[in-house]
Amino acid sequence: MDGHLDGGVVHVGQDARQRYYDSRGYGYPLGGNDVALAPVEAAHLLYRGDLDSVDGMEFREFIRDATDPGFMPRFLVYADLRERGFYLSPAKADWLHGVEPDSEDFVVYPRGKGPTDGEVEYRVRVVGERETVDAVALGDGVLAVVDEESEITYLDTDHPDIDGSAGISLPTGVDCDLLADRATCWNPPAKLYEEGFYGTPLDGRDSDLGAIQLSLVEAAYLATRGAVDVDPETVCARGREVEGERFDRRLRVYAALREAEVVPKTGFKFGADFRTYAEFESVDDFGHSEMLVRVLPISHTFAPRDLALDVRLANGVRKEMVFGLVDRPGDGVTWLRVGRLTP
Amino acid sequence: MDGHLDGGVVHVGQDARQRYYDSRGYGYPLGGNDVALAPVEAAHLLYRGDLDSVDGMEFREFIRDATDPGFMPRFLVYADLRERGFYLSPAKADWLHGVEPDSEDFVVYPRGKGPTDGEVEYRVRVVGERETVDAVALGDGVLAVVDEESEITYLDTDHPDIDGSAGISLPTGVDCDLLADRATCWNPPAKLYEEGFYGTPLDGRDSDLGAIQLSLVEAAYLATRGAVDVDPETVCARGREVEGERFDRRLRVYAALREAEVVPKTGFKFGADFRTYAEFESVDDFGHSEMLVRVLPISHTFAPRDLALDVRLANGVRKEMVFGLVDRPGDGVTWLRVGRLTP
Repeated sequence: MDGHLDGGVVHVGQDARQRYYDSRGYGYPLGGNDVALAPVEAAHLLYRGDLDSVDGMEFREFIRDATDPGFMPRFLVYADLRERGFYLSPAKADWLHGVEPDSEDFVVYPRGKGPTDGEVEYRVRVVGERETVDAVALGDGVLAVVDEESEITYLDTDHPDIDGSAGISLPTGVDCDLLADRATCWNPPAKLYEEGFYGTPLDGRDSDLGAIQLSLVEAAYLATRGAVDVDPETVCARGREVEGERFDRRLRVYAALREAEVVPKTGFKFGADFRTYAEFESVDDFGHSEMLVRVLPISHTFAPRDLALDVRLANGVRKEMVFGLVDRPGDGVTWLRVGRLTP
Repeated sequence: MDGHLDGGVVHVGQDARQRYYDSRGYGYPLGGNDVALAPVEAAHLLYRGDLDSVDGMEFREFIRDATDPGFMPRFLVYADLRERGFYLSPAKADWLHGVEPDSEDFVVYPRGKGPTDGEVEYRVRVVGERETVDAVALGDGVLAVVDEESEITYLDTDHPDIDGSAGISLPTGVDCDLLADRATCWNPPAKLYEEGFYGTPLDGRDSDLGAIQLSLVEAAYLATRGAVDVDPETVCARGREVEGERFDRRLRVYAALREAEVVPKTGFKFGADFRTYAEFESVDDFGHSEMLVRVLPISHTFAPRDLALDVRLANGVRKEMVFGLVDRPGDGVTWLRVGRLTP
């Protein structure tokens, strides 16, 4: 069987409809027995030896001829998902039945289903590892990243609800000193550290001062609510001095987490902004932290490699990787969860 | 006991020499029974209640009075190492015996030893998580990072020898097409992939084309050595087009690893440039990769949080985190290893 390129698709005649479309979900019917194949579908049929040539080109010539730099990554993902037992179509209206295309590259059907069943298993967007991805473009499907050695990493993205049961009442007016880039509370009530998990004891084995150190974010949150006796504006100004705009973003995400009754503590050891506890009884009785949270402006563009790093680390420590995307003051935080997926 | 500040140190009289210096390694003797304490040492004695005041200030007033933003991080590290059973001194000539100070903050003696023994366990530099650290300043001691919640992460740094036993002979003139941002070799000899671990098979279960895909870095390395039949300059130009200067840095590190008989493969899934195998027999028989390598210009400054992320991830997958620092063309690669340390 031979095909020929016509207006960006590959036309194949003879028994193509039965052979490619009806039995294996390639392309879309043109009328009669003809089928139109996307270049990536035609390449896959050439690759398998199920199509002999396109305008005289075999597989090698066909892929060498593709000038679109995204073609090879898309082909590799297409072939990989086919190997994993899925039928999939380019996300364009001609190929789809009862499914609306969005910004993805491929619509992947559940195993055993095809283009005429109107069911979707995954919506997959393909990027090479050197491309960047807007944070706002994620959250509604699968990102397939093709690395420089042509290996594929699948990342599932969604917008989770953040919700905990760590409702904690605050003390008022705890004695507190603002130091250079942290604060110290002296003899605070149990509500602060033991019950609220605010701060870190300064005391060690060698001392029993009754002092708790707060991060600037903790101090700003508590000061704004009158829980500690320092001026909130002074704390925030200090925060901006040492962290710039990042301080306000982090404070907003911190506050959103606390309002959602989730306890945030520093994620520094994991290279993140926060680790979080959705349940918290007291410092003597709390479990494993469930999320790592990285705070980013909503205009952020990800390098896929940085995403891979965050997600891999979170996986390794059995936590979910969540990004807190912050827009203008007054807007809420957009939560973006990214996890590994094996299709 | 009371002290008073004099020229940046705290003088204490009475039986201070016996009490602080001789028996517990604080400060240095001034003559008679007087001892000079660094502010951080005085703070620790105040904190323990072993010194009553300095110029009338107790611990709270003393630390509030410290204007140097690095004081609290240094105090926290000093107190932590004391708690861990070490004696340590500020890295300044007055405090040291038979030990030359370098750029570190503290000289830490082996457990059971003190300032007069002339032995060093660790040289510790202290930074807050918001400070940056020059890559060239690392490699010769311990970096103690104090995070915003006053927790400490110790990172050990050195310059490792990179050396493997994967000496691999190359084929010549393998048929190869340069595609957009990768290359494909057709029917290459076993020397390339099976014996050399260059490239990734394009073939899957569905195909037996005999094709291997190379990354641009692999293709450039092989082309330069005549192993594949594409023009090295064209490959490098393509690399620069898609990665900028980073391509040349990565190629230099790739080549340095191969010359050291270590096999580099992409580290994308770990968010790094390369993972490496020091021993490699064939693709049917190779072990666990030992290192993750990130390529950076030698002028790079680290954010401690990024370092924490890399080192934590490498630890989690039982690999060493190594940075390949690249200077001007012609200069060798400077290898910097960073690992976690529990003092």
